[in-house]
Amino acid sequence: MRRPRPARQLPIPPPDPAAPTPLYVQLVDSIEDGIRHGRLQVGQRLPAERDLASDLGVSRTTVTGAYQELEARGLLRGHVGRGTIVVGTPAGTPAGASRAAVAWPQRVSAMANQAAQVWFGIPRSRPDAIALDSGWPDPKLYPVEALESLLGELVGTSSAELYAGAPPAGDPVLREVLAGWLAARGIRTEPDSVLITTGALQGLNVVARALLAPGDVVITESPTFQCALMAWRWAGAEVVGVPVDRDGIEVDALEEALARHRPKLLYLIPTFHNPTGAVTSRERRRTVLELAARFRVPIVESDLYGALHFEDPPPPPLAALDDAGLVIYQGSFSKIAVPGLRVGWLAAPRGAMAPLTAAKGYVDLSTGELAQRLVAAFLESPHRERHLAFLRAECRARRDQMVAALRQYCPGLGFRVPPGGYYLWAELPAPITTDELLPSAAEHGVTIRPGPEFAPDGGLDDHVRLCFAALEPRRITEGIRRLASALARAGERLESRPRRTSLAAASVV
Amino acid sequence: MRRPRPARQLPIPPPDPAAPTPLYVQLVDSIEDGIRHGRLQVGQRLPAERDLASDLGVSRTTVTGAYQELEARGLLRGHVGRGTIVVGTPAGTPAGASRAAVAWPQRVSAMANQAAQVWFGIPRSRPDAIALDSGWPDPKLYPVEALESLLGELVGTSSAELYAGAPPAGDPVLREVLAGWLAARGIRTEPDSVLITTGALQGLNVVARALLAPGDVVITESPTFQCALMAWRWAGAEVVGVPVDRDGIEVDALEEALARHRPKLLYLIPTFHNPTGAVTSRERRRTVLELAARFRVPIVESDLYGALHFEDPPPPPLAALDDAGLVIYQGSFSKIAVPGLRVGWLAAPRGAMAPLTAAKGYVDLSTGELAQRLVAAFLESPHRERHLAFLRAECRARRDQMVAALRQYCPGLGFRVPPGGYYLWAELPAPITTDELLPSAAEHGVTIRPGPEFAPDGGLDDHVRLCFAALEPRRITEGIRRLASALARAGERLESRPRRTSLAAASVV
Repeated sequence: MRRPRPARQLPIPPPDPAAPTPLYVQLVDSIEDGIRHGRLQVGQRLPAERDLASDLGVSRTTVTGAYQELEARGLLRGHVGRGTIVVGTPAGTPAGASRAAVAWPQRVSAMANQAAQVWFGIPRSRPDAIALDSGWPDPKLYPVEALESLLGELVGTSSAELYAGAPPAGDPVLREVLAGWLAARGIRTEPDSVLITTGALQGLNVVARALLAPGDVVITESPTFQCALMAWRWAGAEVVGVPVDRDGIEVDALEEALARHRPKLLYLIPTFHNPTGAVTSRERRRTVLELAARFRVPIVESDLYGALHFEDPPPPPLAALDDAGLVIYQGSFSKIAVPGLRVGWLAAPRGAMAPLTAAKGYVDLSTGELAQRLVAAFLESPHRERHLAFLRAECRARRDQMVAALRQYCPGLGFRVPPGGYYLWAELPAPITTDELLPSAAEHGVTIRPGPEFAPDGGLDDHVRLCFAALEPRRITEGIRRLASALARAGERLESRPRRTSLAAASVV
Repeated sequence: MRRPRPARQLPIPPPDPAAPTPLYVQLVDSIEDGIRHGRLQVGQRLPAERDLASDLGVSRTTVTGAYQELEARGLLRGHVGRGTIVVGTPAGTPAGASRAAVAWPQRVSAMANQAAQVWFGIPRSRPDAIALDSGWPDPKLYPVEALESLLGELVGTSSAELYAGAPPAGDPVLREVLAGWLAARGIRTEPDSVLITTGALQGLNVVARALLAPGDVVITESPTFQCALMAWRWAGAEVVGVPVDRDGIEVDALEEALARHRPKLLYLIPTFHNPTGAVTSRERRRTVLELAARFRVPIVESDLYGALHFEDPPPPPLAALDDAGLVIYQGSFSKIAVPGLRVGWLAAPRGAMAPLTAAKGYVDLSTGELAQRLVAAFLESPHRERHLAFLRAECRARRDQMVAALRQYCPGLGFRVPPGGYYLWAELPAPITTDELLPSAAEHGVTIRPGPEFAPDGGLDDHVRLCFAALEPRRITEGIRRLASALARAGERLESRPRRTSLAAASVV
């Protein structure tokens, strides 16, 4: 480990890791105090995030979070090519504004502090950045014409109904359409065991509210969907990860974890797993269900990408193999059509419906009715299968493009070719980690998602998630070229770091 | 208190209040067990909820929750005029279905159990029931033509944009429109201090996530909006109520509560308070802000009804009087136009925006984009003021209708005439409580919301909330007539109860 050095030329004391206040809040306070008392002046340039982090012996995330907060308060502004500049003075200075009575950063819950650090923690990139960090489909693939035509029909016929509040469990038309579609895929479902959610992430939060209390344990794959981690943690649960290999979750390790932690919930993405792309084999699916039945643990099966297979169709969902009423199944319109309508769904065993519905009701009363009716119209029309076939072909072509570009430009990256879904999970060439790569990627105009976000138990900073669904093929190639440059730059920096003798410090510009 | 009596003719043991399992879950289990082992048979009628509650010495809510859960499991069904009938046998009986591996009711979080009891706790009424328990405007008042015309314009011009995921803080167009409208009402707001939420209730949940941790205290008015209570409690907070009189929250009691409980948050509805209709006076608004500044407590000001004044405009919102950056202000499209688009908003001090935005992001990523753009188009059009004027006049006429009907048919009810909003808060004639009134109201085909739902600290079972915004005037009159009959019936039942000698018990029909 490098030795942290004092920020000699800067009037910013290092935060104290032993203090109860989060490091980033301490940093916000000391920079604000510096500005208030003139130790830092308007127009002055602050060190780059990575340099200040290194000077103060804190993580880049801490500095990023503090700079973001200070920017939100109007005190700092980041300029491409010029760094971060002091642009304002805090309220309560002689300048005359009334002093804020509430120190918001100190009022924020620990979870919200953590969330803000993750949410705002990715370095902002050039305005022309290529977003390989996306989780959404390319807008060019949206079935816009079909949706507009269906919307036109709805508007002409349904009038006030479209603007009324739906029941908490969802619009009856959509619930019926979904029950039919799910049943056709082998999942025994009736309309009254379908619950509509405002997107899939809300569905996880609803499950968390219905089934979890602080201190409960949730077992997930490791890595797993980063927002799911936050859903479980925000309910006060502890998350325990079980490794994933090419055939999905490792069942021996799962059995051990079930016996050891007695979890309240098992959260799995068996098909085109996010972020690895892995598909849990049919045999392992049976084993997972047997283990869950033996330990009497409900399963949440998130199946947002299952329809997007590039080769043979995947094995049936756990919910279709479930004889014991263990599985709460989850789907969403966002990944198979468009994300902006915010419609997802749960199909749950009947006994789970009352608490899930009550939890959903108290979360946002109901999901938008116009959106639900539009999704229902789309899913019961021939557009559904036509669009899925189109999306499969497009995502496959984009995956192929990304794989070819990686082989050409980034031979040092390790990965498995994903057989479906949106994502490729890539291992960085040692000793580069996401701490080095992220700022270099921002400089080179490409954004990626760092492995640690997906880690239930820490680590994974030698991996990144790349999304191939969000971009046109030629942009994918360009993004991977930029990633190659960023990797090279990160490598150079690592090489040169031990010999570095001085750091950019504060200077008036 | 009446002495609980054993359900002699019923094979249902009384639940044990000392057991860790919720009473309603115990009741579900024992009824299911009774069916499984043939002590209760398909076709058999169970006692009415109130009678079973009385027999077993539990609350009606407990029995209602159990019947609901058993109905959800397909074991019971309620029939108007015939009572509740056993209609199925549980999985795991000799009938052959595989036994469910997860006993869902025992898996449910304590909060979700409580939520399900509240959510499903109001007795279902006749299909022709008149809903005085609503919180939504009458669909006949929706500005459907304006919305359809604006939607038509949007669909013609914006294509894929309408279906993309908005940023977590909201669509920039809507944030700008709202900032302008709020500023025109004296609330200093810029677009980047507006956060769009999926309805107002989600906004409260977002605030809870951002600012509260388990064990924190929130001070509210007593009574207060029932779903807000659940939002604070679901975040693990303890809610302390401060009484409301005609001029709003009682400030001496507030000061005492602030000093005593050192809350993390003060949640207020100063204008056309839900459920009482009270308006906090201008002088008290100043005092509330001074107290909050002194105790450094952020305020959430929910102002969903402020535009619906029937006489003089109310005093400015707290947010417009706030010099200290204390107030997170809340509004919603649901109460001033239509509820089904699920669009609400927060206007927050800048320091609060980062945690609020991160919390919102992890709750449901973003609010529906099509809905946001439609709301933006409406709010920046002349339709906004035209519709508000129309809605004010309509709600005033409906309030007048309700007040006249109450004076004519329910002279025993005590109430203050609300000067705006949706609700009238009525005091029941002693000794009738909501426990007696609710089942009678269900029989007579009128639904009301019981006072205890709105109580932060228990009690208030001598009050009900009546909504006059949801119904046409002649339906309001009919609803109040039915309420009068229900009150009379509840009174008769109370009179006759001490002399009652036998209860309806289980019998094969």
